Amino acid sequence: MTKRKIILDCDPGHDDAIAMLMANAHPDIDLLGITIVAGNQTLKKTVHNGLNVAQLLDIDAKIYPGMPQPLVREQVVAGNVHGKTGLDGPVFPELHRTAEKENGVRFIIDTLMASDGDITLVPTGPLTNIATAMRMEPLIIPKIKEIVLMGGAYGTGNFTPSAEFNIFADPEAAHVVFKSGAPIVMMGLDLTNQTICTPDIIERMEAVGNKAGKLFGDLLRFTLKTQFEEFGLAAGPIHDATTIGYLINPDLFDMQDMFVEVDINRGPSYGRTVCDENAVLGKPANAKVGKGIDVAGFFDLVEQCIRTY
Amino acid sequence: MTKRKIILDCDPGHDDAIAMLMANAHPDIDLLGITIVAGNQTLKKTVHNGLNVAQLLDIDAKIYPGMPQPLVREQVVAGNVHGKTGLDGPVFPELHRTAEKENGVRFIIDTLMASDGDITLVPTGPLTNIATAMRMEPLIIPKIKEIVLMGGAYGTGNFTPSAEFNIFADPEAAHVVFKSGAPIVMMGLDLTNQTICTPDIIERMEAVGNKAGKLFGDLLRFTLKTQFEEFGLAAGPIHDATTIGYLINPDLFDMQDMFVEVDINRGPSYGRTVCDENAVLGKPANAKVGKGIDVAGFFDLVEQCIRTY
Amino acid sequence: MTKRKIILDCDPGHDDAIAMLMANAHPDIDLLGITIVAGNQTLKKTVHNGLNVAQLLDIDAKIYPGMPQPLVREQVVAGNVHGKTGLDGPVFPELHRTAEKENGVRFIIDTLMASDGDITLVPTGPLTNIATAMRMEPLIIPKIKEIVLMGGAYGTGNFTPSAEFNIFADPEAAHVVFKSGAPIVMMGLDLTNQTICTPDIIERMEAVGNKAGKLFGDLLRFTLKTQFEEFGLAAGPIHDATTIGYLINPDLFDMQDMFVEVDINRGPSYGRTVCDENAVLGKPANAKVGKGIDVAGFFDLVEQCIRTY
Amino acid sequence: MTKRKIILDCDPGHDDAIAMLMANAHPDIDLLGITIVAGNQTLKKTVHNGLNVAQLLDIDAKIYPGMPQPLVREQVVAGNVHGKTGLDGPVFPELHRTAEKENGVRFIIDTLMASDGDITLVPTGPLTNIATAMRMEPLIIPKIKEIVLMGGAYGTGNFTPSAEFNIFADPEAAHVVFKSGAPIVMMGLDLTNQTICTPDIIERMEAVGNKAGKLFGDLLRFTLKTQFEEFGLAAGPIHDATTIGYLINPDLFDMQDMFVEVDINRGPSYGRTVCDENAVLGKPANAKVGKGIDVAGFFDLVEQCIRTY
Repeated sequence: MTKRKIILDCDPGHDDAIAMLMANAHPDIDLLGITIVAGNQTLKKTVHNGLNVAQLLDIDAKIYPGMPQPLVREQVVAGNVHGKTGLDGPVFPELHRTAEKENGVRFIIDTLMASDGDITLVPTGPLTNIATAMRMEPLIIPKIKEIVLMGGAYGTGNFTPSAEFNIFADPEAAHVVFKSGAPIVMMGLDLTNQTICTPDIIERMEAVGNKAGKLFGDLLRFTLKTQFEEFGLAAGPIHDATTIGYLINPDLFDMQDMFVEVDINRGPSYGRTVCDENAVLGKPANAKVGKGIDVAGFFDLVEQCIRTY
Repeated sequence: MTKRKIILDCDPGHDDAIAMLMANAHPDIDLLGITIVAGNQTLKKTVHNGLNVAQLLDIDAKIYPGMPQPLVREQVVAGNVHGKTGLDGPVFPELHRTAEKENGVRFIIDTLMASDGDITLVPTGPLTNIATAMRMEPLIIPKIKEIVLMGGAYGTGNFTPSAEFNIFADPEAAHVVFKSGAPIVMMGLDLTNQTICTPDIIERMEAVGNKAGKLFGDLLRFTLKTQFEEFGLAAGPIHDATTIGYLINPDLFDMQDMFVEVDINRGPSYGRTVCDENAVLGKPANAKVGKGIDVAGFFDLVEQCIRTY
Repeated sequence: MTKRKIILDCDPGHDDAIAMLMANAHPDIDLLGITIVAGNQTLKKTVHNGLNVAQLLDIDAKIYPGMPQPLVREQVVAGNVHGKTGLDGPVFPELHRTAEKENGVRFIIDTLMASDGDITLVPTGPLTNIATAMRMEPLIIPKIKEIVLMGGAYGTGNFTPSAEFNIFADPEAAHVVFKSGAPIVMMGLDLTNQTICTPDIIERMEAVGNKAGKLFGDLLRFTLKTQFEEFGLAAGPIHDATTIGYLINPDLFDMQDMFVEVDINRGPSYGRTVCDENAVLGKPANAKVGKGIDVAGFFDLVEQCIRTY
Repeated sequence: MTKRKIILDCDPGHDDAIAMLMANAHPDIDLLGITIVAGNQTLKKTVHNGLNVAQLLDIDAKIYPGMPQPLVREQVVAGNVHGKTGLDGPVFPELHRTAEKENGVRFIIDTLMASDGDITLVPTGPLTNIATAMRMEPLIIPKIKEIVLMGGAYGTGNFTPSAEFNIFADPEAAHVVFKSGAPIVMMGLDLTNQTICTPDIIERMEAVGNKAGKLFGDLLRFTLKTQFEEFGLAAGPIHDATTIGYLINPDLFDMQDMFVEVDINRGPSYGRTVCDENAVLGKPANAKVGKGIDVAGFFDLVEQCIRTY
């Protein structure tokens, strides 16, 4: 089997860090590069966090800073969940790694244009980098093998009753991506909220006894607290990591084809991924939407990735 | 115990007919009048259907035709579910009953203004009559004991991915009602879809052996078919009847206080009841929203009502 | 020539009072009734003002209170222009006249339904009464000879950069009326702002020396001040009176056929009458829109009406 | 006097070509570079047209292709006005000039970041390049001396009743630019429609007898026809050239400070520059908006520029 070539486009972020950990670890994944976007925190902070995680875990893939602000809307960040740094919890050693000079949007465009159509984009933050790349060079769209993203919900949102944070933070970018025609796999809250890391999960990963297990613990002990305080969840889900899980073993996931449109009206549904779950619109599906996940199987996969470090 | 005084505001409609049947039958309910609104079909047809049901079941309450069109939007009807007449299925005897001359909106205003604040409104169609009454005479609002309505969803809609039919048919009216300050109980699809009348339920009600049981069967055998064809449901729910069920025995229902706003932006979420299920907005709740129902207990109640005929 | 039968639908209001004065005075107009709507002030105040004007000028036409609130939006009034009472300035004698019990909306519906299609509606306030009547009884629409209204603008608005007050106070009602198919004559700010009553005009009308001339003076000396302070106008226009002027002598007016749609999106253009002045949309015109007025001829007409008292 | 440093950001386009002609000709202007955007036609065509004009007129400034598509909306072009090529009319010699490899957005960012805050942006097409640059590198915003743009209207639009083409072609980009805080000079249709090039103007410029005069004639004879057919204008205005005219001699222009917001609601006012002409909102002005122009003085300036070739 050939490795799955991916660009990870993220805004670390606690669960982004787990996605980085898994994408770097698993032998089926070929991590071509990591692009960073503003989201959970400002771009300066998400880049810093990405570099910290990469240095700690010896991730070879280069890190490219992308868009510091959403396409159209005023910026919002998720300090309530991820803390002041965007990655509160772990204490990292002094940072020596540096980001690339090349812009992440440019990296996405150039890498796709030079490819044979075998690269998958894995956005786990707001879709600003991807949408900007698509509008700056529309010819990348037919080059994209698949976009496997974390974002949205067909049920209730988390930042508003209608919207999940990644989409709410840049609804116009999400609108562009969902209308682009590229094949999309959407891991929304309906699925990702199932991956909560309760104390027993945290202890299990820490018990592996290496730096990756310790990072997992340091991260998830922090969101354990904020996710409960903000959303009443029993513990912190690792939303973003489901994208990598899906790429490694899609059989763990229950998916449904749906037509999805992002609401960009500035009313109470701003940023909602309107998913035609019952196919009442009669429009062709543009996304595979996650409904269920084999939680036990997924955490086995997480542990397997942690053990490689 | 004093009887619960109600005005039933409906657009018959199959499940509206069951609501009429139950409201008329149960000793705890004092049915002051029935107002009709356009919805499942045109007003002419919904009035005709209401009269047919009232005549068949010897319902004493008078029938007042209300609004033939929504407040602002162009009219939509639900012929796909309720058929060409709006009540396809049963064959009714020749109709002798007639509707009142007085407009339903006028009846609602005058009845409430003359009351001691002990009247509950039970809308099971689009909220056009209620909203018009509120705007024509805002002094009725503090007179309303409660509004127990069928409409909306916090999950997926039925007429669009976002919207349930009653709200979609007049989103602006629903917007007015949910912002009015009157106490609201909302039976949305999340709850009402649980009340599907599978063949065994239909046979059980028919087995009562009276005209009410026969009507139940004739009605539900028709929607059994259309609900499957349109929405993939195993059989037809009796959405509207849950409102009367709640008034008789609220203990059968699992409700949650939520802030609810109706989206009137003309985008993909037009007509959505945006329900703050996780209370992320920090706004005071304006509705009790139905989440679960004791289905067995509810159908016992339905049968009990049928047996009174 | 047969008299022009009209129902005047107003929210007095200074310039509404002039419209009442003219409609009652001129032999070519048959004033069937006056319906009142909330607008410049609350319904209670606009009814009171209408009765005061009718009593002072011995206007026979009956006065019917209509809608106290807009169809959908929260209420706004124009206290900044018309003062706390809605008709600040004149001192009226003790009020003995009373309003009809019948609702204005009902009066509009019943009068139109009983007519031969020869009645013109003349709304000079928000279009709430007209829209409600249309939705409550759509069969009135083909009965309407013409709607000659004051409202909107194709240029800059007065209450927002986009919207004129009458439309802004109930955009959804205006949306319904402009989409109704009834023939519309629209006197917008583009035309009505030309009718400013500078001190020389005021003195001229007062010099007629009767109660109508005095009323004109008392009214316009007040808005002279507020229109300058609010909108920088040299004096107060008598917007609403242009509708009656048009009915008496349309030759004084320069009109253009346009397709007009009212924007009901809740953004910066909420309540704008979007007028296709250059016919770029290719849609059939639904309104004659006022562009210019023979100001001298119009004030001659106003004086002529004042002299009849 | 020091020269005014500018980047011309355009979508040639007939009137863009005149802006190029003038910006290159006048000694008070230092043309640092020309960035191209999709607008009047696709990017491929607008770049081709820009190169043709630059080659014909020996314009030294380099040409940088920018965004081929708007930020969020689906693409629209103005083939109805500018023809199939986007610059129908003139016959150009074989093209030898080539565009730069560097993206126009990158050029704008890098040039501004390296500057002392003395560079003016002159956009005469959709604002996609400028908005993308602002979102990709927000630090450029305080570096911008001024944005002197052609676009919008406070009166009637040309592509819709509400919107002028440049703004309609990318309303979201315009929304970003007008909210950015950078000082803006807006030349809207209210002003630019006054610059129509009637046959006598065309003949006067052609009579200069050089290649620039011939180009002017070849261009304007074409739009003479299309502007009449599309918008009923007596001849073609040279909208875009007013920006350069203003930079050379602002005394020719009557400007008013206004607060301007671009409507991005997808209704009938989509893409409208909502201009608070009467300052009713009480918000600080963010733009100087053109109201009038000394037309004779402006055409003298145009002729003066043509004579330098």
